[in-house]
Amino acid sequence: MLFGALEAGGTKMVLAIGNENGEILEQVSIPTETPSITIPKIIEYYKGKEIAALGIGSFGPIDLDKKSKTYGYITSTPKLAWANYDLVGNIKKELPLPIGFDTDVNGSALGEATWGITKDVESSIYITIGTGVGIGVYLNGGLLHGMLHPEAGHVLLSKHPDDKFEGVCPYHPNCLEGLASGPSIEKRWGKKAIDLKDNQKVWEIEAYYIAQALVGYILTLSPHRIVLGGGVMHQEQLFPLIRSKVTELLNGYVRTSQINDMEHYIVPAALNDNQGIMGCIQLAKMELQNK
Amino acid sequence: MLFGALEAGGTKMVLAIGNENGEILEQVSIPTETPSITIPKIIEYYKGKEIAALGIGSFGPIDLDKKSKTYGYITSTPKLAWANYDLVGNIKKELPLPIGFDTDVNGSALGEATWGITKDVESSIYITIGTGVGIGVYLNGGLLHGMLHPEAGHVLLSKHPDDKFEGVCPYHPNCLEGLASGPSIEKRWGKKAIDLKDNQKVWEIEAYYIAQALVGYILTLSPHRIVLGGGVMHQEQLFPLIRSKVTELLNGYVRTSQINDMEHYIVPAALNDNQGIMGCIQLAKMELQNK
Ligand SMILES: Nc1ncnc2c1ncn2[C@@H]1O[C@H](COP(=O)(O)OP(=O)(O)O)[C@@H](O)[C@H]1O
Ligand SMILES: Nc1ncnc2c1ncn2[C@@H]1O[C@H](COP(=O)(O)OP(=O)(O)O)[C@@H](O)[C@H]1O
Ligand SMILES: [Zn+2]
Ligand SMILES: [Zn+2]
Repeated sequence: MLFGALEAGGTKMVLAIGNENGEILEQVSIPTETPSITIPKIIEYYKGKEIAALGIGSFGPIDLDKKSKTYGYITSTPKLAWANYDLVGNIKKELPLPIGFDTDVNGSALGEATWGITKDVESSIYITIGTGVGIGVYLNGGLLHGMLHPEAGHVLLSKHPDDKFEGVCPYHPNCLEGLASGPSIEKRWGKKAIDLKDNQKVWEIEAYYIAQALVGYILTLSPHRIVLGGGVMHQEQLFPLIRSKVTELLNGYVRTSQINDMEHYIVPAALNDNQGIMGCIQLAKMELQNK
Repeated sequence: MLFGALEAGGTKMVLAIGNENGEILEQVSIPTETPSITIPKIIEYYKGKEIAALGIGSFGPIDLDKKSKTYGYITSTPKLAWANYDLVGNIKKELPLPIGFDTDVNGSALGEATWGITKDVESSIYITIGTGVGIGVYLNGGLLHGMLHPEAGHVLLSKHPDDKFEGVCPYHPNCLEGLASGPSIEKRWGKKAIDLKDNQKVWEIEAYYIAQALVGYILTLSPHRIVLGGGVMHQEQLFPLIRSKVTELLNGYVRTSQINDMEHYIVPAALNDNQGIMGCIQLAKMELQNK
């Protein structure tokens, strides 16, 4: 059985066809322009491909409340051409299929939980540290939405004593995204993150912020495992720094077999940056099963 | 139909009999001594009362993992007589009934979600600010456990610029419980919280810490409503201070109809301090239904 998968990002759209085992059979990527340019290309791609359902993991904020009049919309995004845009509705008009819809990072959480590094545990979170910072939460066999969906890239942190940088988030002087996203590293140090590999202070400060946020997530959500993905996390030296800072900050308060085995508790994404698009395949499958 | 309800606290045990509508028909309270003194009294109370099931909301940490060998135990509590104590097992030996088991504060969250201030919303959190600080999370018709259960009374916060107090948590210099529990107020100001009603600075600092924690919970769990209970929250002047600080810290980032209506988003507990024991009645009911 074939499923369509669409990872809708602010800069590019990844379109793929997969099967029920999460295998990606074909994949293309197109730039995200305006809806009137980009949506017809998306529709054209999936038309005639005999997919049983489509799964979309989208940038946000988005409306996930099936009872809402604006369900399936991208809502208050700063990308103005897409603000208050009925993404699911406009696609469904031309592709009358079951369409699963969630945040991009919930998609990644689902991809790893279905086929990747968290498939053996009941609950997990996926955090992407890239251009933005986002978290997806998988628990009780589904994804956490609540009132909106987690926006935990913006949790507030204490500043590192040596960090005088004011952050890049227009809303918060001291949130995770503002202090630890790829663009924040670049602005603080005047170089791209990838070119700062050998500067230990960069990664000490980065790990300090990520670890603080993880401690909050652990105490609040109590996940069985934490996955870190996104461009910045390709700097693998971050993992031991983050693990030891989390242990230090928790200070023995949460005693579980998982926390005692940090190497397997805080782990890198394991699906070769396909976790998002594979999660969209699973979103499609789940939507079909619920119909 | 009758249900037994047991709120197991570190200083006292509340024992009650209720019906399927959450009505409490009788209730007693006994001090929490050692298990060998207290457990026989608990068993004696429920024996012969013709209850169909028992619900227990317990102090913790506790083991909620039904697949674990220590399911139903109180685990690493500093109350040493109760550490590694098989609470559910020892009661079940004498009362062979379905026994629902959860944290005390998940019990309160469930009580409010079933019969109280959050019964009209899909997800909610309940925070108690008393001798300790704890949170319970209700979502998708059940309570959040994850790896252990939320321990979000210990989330880490930024210190208020005017607060030189070192906190009362032995684990964390700057966690919510350490900086905002009843005992922390008493130690910081040298007087009981209830006798500090007219000292505005006390409540400004208190609201500053509670609001920071709520912002973290909102961004991470995205609850439809937040309930604040426990002894300290009897200081009603805290509510407007907390609401305006939450609004200030979020700074327009999360835009939902709920957040735009703070008066109905952050609310006091509404069951006259019976939310915990009523939640235990519901824990009993749910356990019976799942058998
Ligand atoms: N190998 C790397 N090391 C450090 N930073 C990287 C690396 N690759 C990408 N980045 C940073 O990650 C950000 C892009 O994140 P990415 O997850 O790739 O995409 P996006 O978040 O836009 O979907 C950029 O700020 C970039 O500088
Ligand atoms: N009316 C009140 N105003 C302020 N603080 C109070 C009030 N009543 C109780 N407290 C404080 O709350 C704490 C007790 O919390 P409570 O929720 O009543 O019990 P517990 O947390 O032990 O179950 C004490 O530190 C006490 O000083
Ligand atoms: Zn922010
Ligand atoms: Zn603490």
